[in-house]
Amino acid sequence: MAALAVTSMLYSQETVYHDASAFTVIGKAIPTSKAFTRIDTSAYKFNDEVIEEYACHSTGLAVLFATDSPFIKAKWQTSPKNASENMTAIAQKGLDLYIRQDGEWVFAGVGRPKMDKGPEYAMHSGTIVKEMAPGRKECLLYLPLYDRLDSLFIGVEDGSYVEPLENPFKYRIVVKGSSVTHGLAASRPGMSYAARFGRDNGFYCFNLGFSGKSKLQKEFAEYLADIDADAFIFDAFSNPSAEVIHESFDQFVDIIRAAHPDKPLIFMQTERRESRNFDVWREDFEARKQAAAEEEIRERMKTDRHIYFIPSDDFLGDEHIATSDGSHPTDLGFTYMLESISPKVLKILRKYGIK
Amino acid sequence: MAALAVTSMLYSQETVYHDASAFTVIGKAIPTSKAFTRIDTSAYKFNDEVIEEYACHSTGLAVLFATDSPFIKAKWQTSPKNASENMTAIAQKGLDLYIRQDGEWVFAGVGRPKMDKGPEYAMHSGTIVKEMAPGRKECLLYLPLYDRLDSLFIGVEDGSYVEPLENPFKYRIVVKGSSVTHGLAASRPGMSYAARFGRDNGFYCFNLGFSGKSKLQKEFAEYLADIDADAFIFDAFSNPSAEVIHESFDQFVDIIRAAHPDKPLIFMQTERRESRNFDVWREDFEARKQAAAEEEIRERMKTDRHIYFIPSDDFLGDEHIATSDGSHPTDLGFTYMLESISPKVLKILRKYGIK
Repeated sequence: MAALAVTSMLYSQETVYHDASAFTVIGKAIPTSKAFTRIDTSAYKFNDEVIEEYACHSTGLAVLFATDSPFIKAKWQTSPKNASENMTAIAQKGLDLYIRQDGEWVFAGVGRPKMDKGPEYAMHSGTIVKEMAPGRKECLLYLPLYDRLDSLFIGVEDGSYVEPLENPFKYRIVVKGSSVTHGLAASRPGMSYAARFGRDNGFYCFNLGFSGKSKLQKEFAEYLADIDADAFIFDAFSNPSAEVIHESFDQFVDIIRAAHPDKPLIFMQTERRESRNFDVWREDFEARKQAAAEEEIRERMKTDRHIYFIPSDDFLGDEHIATSDGSHPTDLGFTYMLESISPKVLKILRKYGIK
Repeated sequence: MAALAVTSMLYSQETVYHDASAFTVIGKAIPTSKAFTRIDTSAYKFNDEVIEEYACHSTGLAVLFATDSPFIKAKWQTSPKNASENMTAIAQKGLDLYIRQDGEWVFAGVGRPKMDKGPEYAMHSGTIVKEMAPGRKECLLYLPLYDRLDSLFIGVEDGSYVEPLENPFKYRIVVKGSSVTHGLAASRPGMSYAARFGRDNGFYCFNLGFSGKSKLQKEFAEYLADIDADAFIFDAFSNPSAEVIHESFDQFVDIIRAAHPDKPLIFMQTERRESRNFDVWREDFEARKQAAAEEEIRERMKTDRHIYFIPSDDFLGDEHIATSDGSHPTDLGFTYMLESISPKVLKILRKYGIK
């Protein structure tokens, strides 16, 4: 009898994998042909190989589905690239699952990627959560923050259902920025500040973070102009120098404004980097960037009443413990940042009926 | 003239490397023969290869030195092992520098390791901070949290001085525990809760975190008995099951107590893991662990007035965002944990004149 019981249990745990592209994929500001690619680089050209690689990341994308399976597994394929030394592989190329409980998205588990170089390290598989109580689970699965995702299959118990879940997030909010927005030093894909702002407030946010490459380029402005959006939040001043800010800011805003004449454009000052603490060259460079950013925005605000500026003085707290490397906010840094920006951004958005 | 000026600048930036083992190495509870090894495994046997590997980590160790160099570089050698998917390589095998400013240790920069498998990836080099203003800098350089460190050389400008700095940390406080104590999901070596507790309060803490292997073993108790310590803080219940806690707790305390009859033994309850959120098996397993721990401690407290218990209910906050993978606190988790434990631990330590 014991042998039979074990056989029955094994049988009941058989896994069936479903192509996740058949479920609800959220987070693309403009539809793309590939399932898990945030920007279609055949439609939008950026004249920069690294930007085009980043455009194909699954940054900010998530899959929504519901299932009554007692476990959730995944098989997925990314690039074979290793994580950078200032980020976790889970954030770079892993999965991050939340299940809805009393209306809140509660962390349920991660999909752990393999790490190490070589083609075989592009294929990942694992159990994200198991031994769940019976019943329907509504699932929000964030995709790799800092890698492309070539395929994703969700594994559930044979005989259980799995079905697309309606996107519960309202209003279309673009978050455009640097590696800070990209979420580089978040611990998990769902911990970028853009993902947390969306999840915490029920907003539909698009993560357009481009690590080190977000320099007020015309090509980005043209892409943003094409997005059907209710509001734009910008971390626009982390990557460009003071000189580039002065040269490019007006053109960048002009292009977006022409397409979105009365949408709120909310510009955050770039954080005060911890790499300034003792490096006098960096201190000067960053101070000039911040001065240039504030000057350009304040000038523009004189004639554009839908432009907003959010100072960054408290983005990283005051204990010098909020970055992984002097530049990139960790989950702690993003917590400080959200404590600072959320009330200010929410107040602005309410003026536009976004609440 | 321009050519001469450039030559002169290059010459002035020439780097001289000094063996860091000649400076002040802190963080060893008992001296060891190797410069950057926390426990001497020829003197202490643990009957477990993984424990003995961890014993040779530089976890919790730091180098103290002073210099008037405008930059600080490093060359260092670790194992060639890659970081785990739930941690950063900077935490695992990198360096984390703080410089004293108005009596506070202020973050200055990180030493970024190479990542990827292969022997050549054991050799790292980099600039930690540069372009500093003239003057003496007092430096606290944390060593890799989760790897061995075979050698470390500090690079300073030719002609500048570099000298050992006296250990400013007072009282000898042992922090013994699991991967949580080991600091697995800290973003940088100086961000483990043990390092932060020591740095923030001026205490000399020893990090004896042993990832997944801290199960109230007799061998650990015997090592702890040999340490000249003023207080012991324990994260003792994260790794053992309820059964192991019931079997081993009294023997573990007996051995330490025999050597330290009236030192405070401060036991923290293990954190409420986020992996319990939906996994009913894990929920039961962890709840039984926590019940066993509290039962054993409460019983022991009846006859030992120097044993203390710190509940863990608020170690990870209440938003389910404080771990990298459901188990390991990030810098955010450690911040919540320190906000919870610091006032309680400091109050206990004050009773023993430790303040």
